Amino acid sequence: MPTISQRGQMMPPSPIRKLVPFAEAAKKRGTTVYHLNIGQPDIETPEQVLDAVRNSHFKILEYSHSAGNESYRKKLTEYYKRFDIDLTAQQIIVTTGGSEAILFGFMSCLDQGDEIIIPEPFYANYNGFAVAAGVHVVPISSSIETGFALPPIEDFEKVITSKTKAIMICNPNNPTGYLYSQEELEVLKKICLKYNLFLFSDEAYREFCYSGKHFSAMNLEGMDNNVVLMDTISKRYSACGARIGALVTKNQAVLDAAMKFAQARLSPPSFEQLAGEAAVDLPGDYFDEIKAEYQSRRDILVKMLNEIPGVFCPNVGGAFYAMAKLPIDNADRFCQWLLEEFEYEKQTVMLSPGTGFYATPGLGTNEVRLAYVLNREDITKAMIALGKALEVYPGRV
Amino acid sequence: MPTISQRGQMMPPSPIRKLVPFAEAAKKRGTTVYHLNIGQPDIETPEQVLDAVRNSHFKILEYSHSAGNESYRKKLTEYYKRFDIDLTAQQIIVTTGGSEAILFGFMSCLDQGDEIIIPEPFYANYNGFAVAAGVHVVPISSSIETGFALPPIEDFEKVITSKTKAIMICNPNNPTGYLYSQEELEVLKKICLKYNLFLFSDEAYREFCYSGKHFSAMNLEGMDNNVVLMDTISKRYSACGARIGALVTKNQAVLDAAMKFAQARLSPPSFEQLAGEAAVDLPGDYFDEIKAEYQSRRDILVKMLNEIPGVFCPNVGGAFYAMAKLPIDNADRFCQWLLEEFEYEKQTVMLSPGTGFYATPGLGTNEVRLAYVLNREDITKAMIALGKALEVYPGRV
Repeated sequence: MPTISQRGQMMPPSPIRKLVPFAEAAKKRGTTVYHLNIGQPDIETPEQVLDAVRNSHFKILEYSHSAGNESYRKKLTEYYKRFDIDLTAQQIIVTTGGSEAILFGFMSCLDQGDEIIIPEPFYANYNGFAVAAGVHVVPISSSIETGFALPPIEDFEKVITSKTKAIMICNPNNPTGYLYSQEELEVLKKICLKYNLFLFSDEAYREFCYSGKHFSAMNLEGMDNNVVLMDTISKRYSACGARIGALVTKNQAVLDAAMKFAQARLSPPSFEQLAGEAAVDLPGDYFDEIKAEYQSRRDILVKMLNEIPGVFCPNVGGAFYAMAKLPIDNADRFCQWLLEEFEYEKQTVMLSPGTGFYATPGLGTNEVRLAYVLNREDITKAMIALGKALEVYPGRV
Repeated sequence: MPTISQRGQMMPPSPIRKLVPFAEAAKKRGTTVYHLNIGQPDIETPEQVLDAVRNSHFKILEYSHSAGNESYRKKLTEYYKRFDIDLTAQQIIVTTGGSEAILFGFMSCLDQGDEIIIPEPFYANYNGFAVAAGVHVVPISSSIETGFALPPIEDFEKVITSKTKAIMICNPNNPTGYLYSQEELEVLKKICLKYNLFLFSDEAYREFCYSGKHFSAMNLEGMDNNVVLMDTISKRYSACGARIGALVTKNQAVLDAAMKFAQARLSPPSFEQLAGEAAVDLPGDYFDEIKAEYQSRRDILVKMLNEIPGVFCPNVGGAFYAMAKLPIDNADRFCQWLLEEFEYEKQTVMLSPGTGFYATPGLGTNEVRLAYVLNREDITKAMIALGKALEVYPGRV
């Protein structure tokens, strides 16, 4: 029997999805499970976005251009213009989700054995793309005590080697909700220019900033050849299943390389590009409403978390996640226990163990990530249940 | 300025798409270009396949299961049952096009530096996925004189090393149209079992067999742990833009590894999975009609090609491609010349140079691939124009 690859063995399973069987068992027992573990919003996808697909009229579901439909890429230049990002349609490659933008970025800029610095905790799937591309993730730790602010410049410089090719951030951040300031981005610019590094910026949650304005890496002056933006419509329009993202850069060599990876897989999905194109024309107040909704959820979540004895959750600047420190022995054990052994009024909560978002072993063992993707009533009930759980959890410290 | 990766530099541009600017210029001059260069059929996508998307009713475009909707995977087990392939839904991972099935297969089974043997000429994008995965393609040559039959077993054994992990075929074949016989598959089985190799089988064109019955690698007895099937709905239902494929295997370790790559990219596109699911319920005579259409195109194409002095095209067993040997000095030059300098009654032909499908330098220089994806009238006109072109081409030999 032939054996699978080492890469296939090393590939990390999703830390978010590994508890799913326990959740399914809890539901079979009749327990309501509040899913705060995954970034799948309950917000409806805008009708005009879905209708763009449903009212389409073509007769043949053809390949699109490998970089995505030109009409969509032109439309995206209008979208980015709203954030003072000036682009041509040729500087945008439409990808199959933000996931593929990350993979194309890694593949185009880094070789097997190269290193990428990422402040931890970070989006767990970066690990998966790193393994796929044979790239080493070098974490530098940010701390819940500072609300997960950017680590100091010395921390970056300490780990930079001749193999370092890039720094990656997610802004606002998944899983921490931290919103990087313009000053922090200027620090990253300084490091990238000094050491000749790419800056990968995942800005999936650009519109969801509650305290302060978003400053895009694309707005850093003098960084045109360094910045590669990874983007997606998944969270922005509550359209996770569309699998439509974008790799955006002004670095022509990166575009040329990424384009070859794009050609090999032929094209991104055709129907959903229509959805993405229609989304750019949503009325200006669309985000006002959605943002207000998320902000009110955040306010409840952060407040109720901090009211639970022994819990600490820094206030959150953006996205729709928060990391909280709990008075527990082991986050993996706790999250599983919540599903397997606990219920309060036939309800329990599904959370993501913090460990899955750290690359340094031992970190995140008393932290969890909460996605506030449920309505306020459900969040309230979930927080009450969590409080009760922490009263009786045998591993409480 | 940071430099891109060596992988990004090595990545081959699509040999099929590189002539596009010349075709565009020809069209601007008012010349009709018959596109026999790309596998984008002019056959309409079945209405009930498109309607499954257009008549959908959900409110949130959610992530699907990373392996694809369970209802679709169950439906696919019915589809495969028609070919005597017994599967469970867990043995199918729905992928973003056949492209992603190939990438997941390479990533899950081969490491950086491992080797995969592929009879050439082969589908050019296999090279791209090999570069992405850091894998070396080792070609063994099949010949137009034998109609591109499977090379003898000794040719395989000559190139097998300790690094060899897999053999890959496309059956029926793109670009040659060759349909591998059961006997040839038994030869491959013998080699794979003897040397402990995976057998990757790309069966995108399974339904389009004109001379003889398709024998799937999945039907090889005693090969459950060796065979990995890469599949797609693109050609089958003229739905190239759907980007829906499948990785199918009974090897649990491969499934487990591929599933981790699938989880990292979250899910395949949601709308198009509805299309794929509806397609399984197309009436039984759907393929009779489509196959008859392709067969009649093949008959015209192969006959007219062989009537042109100096041209040889072996008859084609399946898919919708043919390779032809032309009396020319250089296929790349000829294909470009057709677009840049030739026209007959304001028409010309776009073909794919044979060189793009060979890994061995120097092979395919007097061959071209023709995709018979146009209607009979257009194919007839294209063949007349090609005949005229060969009369006046300055590099005729």
